[in-house]
Amino acid sequence: MAQILETPFLNRLNYPTLIATKAARVADAARGSAVLEFGMRRGPNSGVYAGGRAALIGGADFTSNVALSHAIGLDPKGTHAHSMVQAFLALGMTELDAFRKFAQMYPDECILLVDTIDVMQSGVPNAIAVFEELRNNGHQPAGIRIDSGDLAYLTIQAAALLDAAGFEDVAIVLSSDLDELVIWQILSQLESEAPRYGLAPEALVGRVTFGVGTRLITSHGDPALGGVYKLVAIDDESGESQPAIKISENIEKIAVPGDKRLIRAYDNRGLATADIIARADEDPLTSDLIDLYHPHREVHRTLKASDISDSEGLLEPVFNDGARQDGEPDLETLRERRRSDLQRLDPGVRRLVNPHIYHVSLTKTMKDLQLELIDELGA
Amino acid sequence: MAQILETPFLNRLNYPTLIATKAARVADAARGSAVLEFGMRRGPNSGVYAGGRAALIGGADFTSNVALSHAIGLDPKGTHAHSMVQAFLALGMTELDAFRKFAQMYPDECILLVDTIDVMQSGVPNAIAVFEELRNNGHQPAGIRIDSGDLAYLTIQAAALLDAAGFEDVAIVLSSDLDELVIWQILSQLESEAPRYGLAPEALVGRVTFGVGTRLITSHGDPALGGVYKLVAIDDESGESQPAIKISENIEKIAVPGDKRLIRAYDNRGLATADIIARADEDPLTSDLIDLYHPHREVHRTLKASDISDSEGLLEPVFNDGARQDGEPDLETLRERRRSDLQRLDPGVRRLVNPHIYHVSLTKTMKDLQLELIDELGA
Repeated sequence: MAQILETPFLNRLNYPTLIATKAARVADAARGSAVLEFGMRRGPNSGVYAGGRAALIGGADFTSNVALSHAIGLDPKGTHAHSMVQAFLALGMTELDAFRKFAQMYPDECILLVDTIDVMQSGVPNAIAVFEELRNNGHQPAGIRIDSGDLAYLTIQAAALLDAAGFEDVAIVLSSDLDELVIWQILSQLESEAPRYGLAPEALVGRVTFGVGTRLITSHGDPALGGVYKLVAIDDESGESQPAIKISENIEKIAVPGDKRLIRAYDNRGLATADIIARADEDPLTSDLIDLYHPHREVHRTLKASDISDSEGLLEPVFNDGARQDGEPDLETLRERRRSDLQRLDPGVRRLVNPHIYHVSLTKTMKDLQLELIDELGA
Repeated sequence: MAQILETPFLNRLNYPTLIATKAARVADAARGSAVLEFGMRRGPNSGVYAGGRAALIGGADFTSNVALSHAIGLDPKGTHAHSMVQAFLALGMTELDAFRKFAQMYPDECILLVDTIDVMQSGVPNAIAVFEELRNNGHQPAGIRIDSGDLAYLTIQAAALLDAAGFEDVAIVLSSDLDELVIWQILSQLESEAPRYGLAPEALVGRVTFGVGTRLITSHGDPALGGVYKLVAIDDESGESQPAIKISENIEKIAVPGDKRLIRAYDNRGLATADIIARADEDPLTSDLIDLYHPHREVHRTLKASDISDSEGLLEPVFNDGARQDGEPDLETLRERRRSDLQRLDPGVRRLVNPHIYHVSLTKTMKDLQLELIDELGA
């Protein structure tokens, strides 16, 4: 029974966890600016629904995936395509005609894509002309979108023009092979360059929104999460749980055997300091000094109980007797859990590049069991 | 109407094309040895069905995805899990007991996973013991699988033991983060090292089968194909087709406008020498010298008609008036098309590392149209 579940479990956990993690990194880099999931065109076929949902849990605010948005109760967010403007041009009309028609249809959520011809020579001036018409008719224009070129430079230039026309509140949506590192660089550049152009850094950073497609939905740079599902215990004929192990020439593939508890300990700053894998029947936090062992290496450290401010068990039953036990939490509950968990991680382990590795440790009892089973196999 | 189709088309074309291409590279590296698609555990949720099917078209022989195999009319292929052996060990029995039980249930398709404890000290000797029992009962053992460690070294060692026991026909299935480059290296090493161990290189290479999971289903190294869908022509009110263009500061994003034909020309070796994008109403192959232009750069070359042995049109209608026109070709037809197309590519463009870039060119008429439309936009 348990074996049959391996592949569906891993299929449903690995990819969404990967994309939620990538989205969390993107949202971190975006510093509170909105992140829109735009990955449907390059994403993995029907996997984009699970991927998009995971992105929304992990850090994306909205998705352009209409079906997913409806299923999950969010407004889909996106912009018109280049082809909308192209169609007008091909039929002898202008970009201004195209923008004007779009604004007539969406006067209160008008985002104009300004890079079909030339962002600064054509797109932004035409957008401002249409925004002025909207304003004269009592509407608030929503934004422009730039999808190519030097995004940081064009953002500054466009912001200056928009400000001069009195459109300080109009958003600037950026897209084009974005990921957390590109976003990080763009925002750093906007912040440091803004004063040179008479712009307020905070306002400039705050008005930018990011449309993140390919590199989010494929987790560019690290496209697979290697979660595994291993037999660690099995009931014998008398119903007693017997620990099981898998050993391997690849030392990091050696399993942690037996029925277990998983406890996260928080330090006096309220930040997570250790995830402790213990045997199910032990409470590792009762001693003054807690010995912690690396799962695969001969590394050992000691945690003082007085340095622990709080702890929580991380294993929660999701299914029992075929019925879900967790109330099928909604998107907002899952997002809140992600926010709360991430806030309690040390900034060092959340660094986008070269992060500190977070400790997952075994108790002495658990380490002894692991070594004993390895010995028994004579390996 | 055409705009609404953009996202579903790209979603259904980009990812499967990527995975089919990756599978073709893997199959190339495997030199005719069987390739099994094993990607469900790390693949993109329900996208693994489209990805697995694409792998089967592109170069994989079978998949371990049971539902997909049944839907497509193939036998699913895989092996038992480590947990099968672990369960026996945890309950006080041995790896030999586990193998023997498995062989009793699958006497004619018995593949044994030999790395739960130790490949050479335990797994292979136990497998040989069980294989001898199968042979004594008139069955032909199918294979062993090695999923960790130095796969090339272990293959040689295991093959020597199997040969010594008279099991020259037993396959050796390898898995563990394989991709085309790892497979290429393993086969090269088997070929060059075999004589040192008294093994025949060809027989050793021929008995290896590859289970390729994570790195195939995620196209490790290049996890997204950037296919786009652009407005290139639109009928005006009188029903005449008007060309449309999208220009961009990123020069490679500039579209090729207008109604078109796409022709592949073959040289006197029968290999593809140029893909030619022409206007719909011209036949570029009628002149003695065919001028070909790069889509984005000022590069120009000339193809002699006398150097062309054959040509074919590459655009085929798939849908017309809402109905499929292509008869929904089955897996074997699609595989045959892939084999035939790949055989007619120059080995240089099929190199796994640093391949020669294949030429896709515009005719002069098409290039002139592109430049004319760019000029009209004043960009």
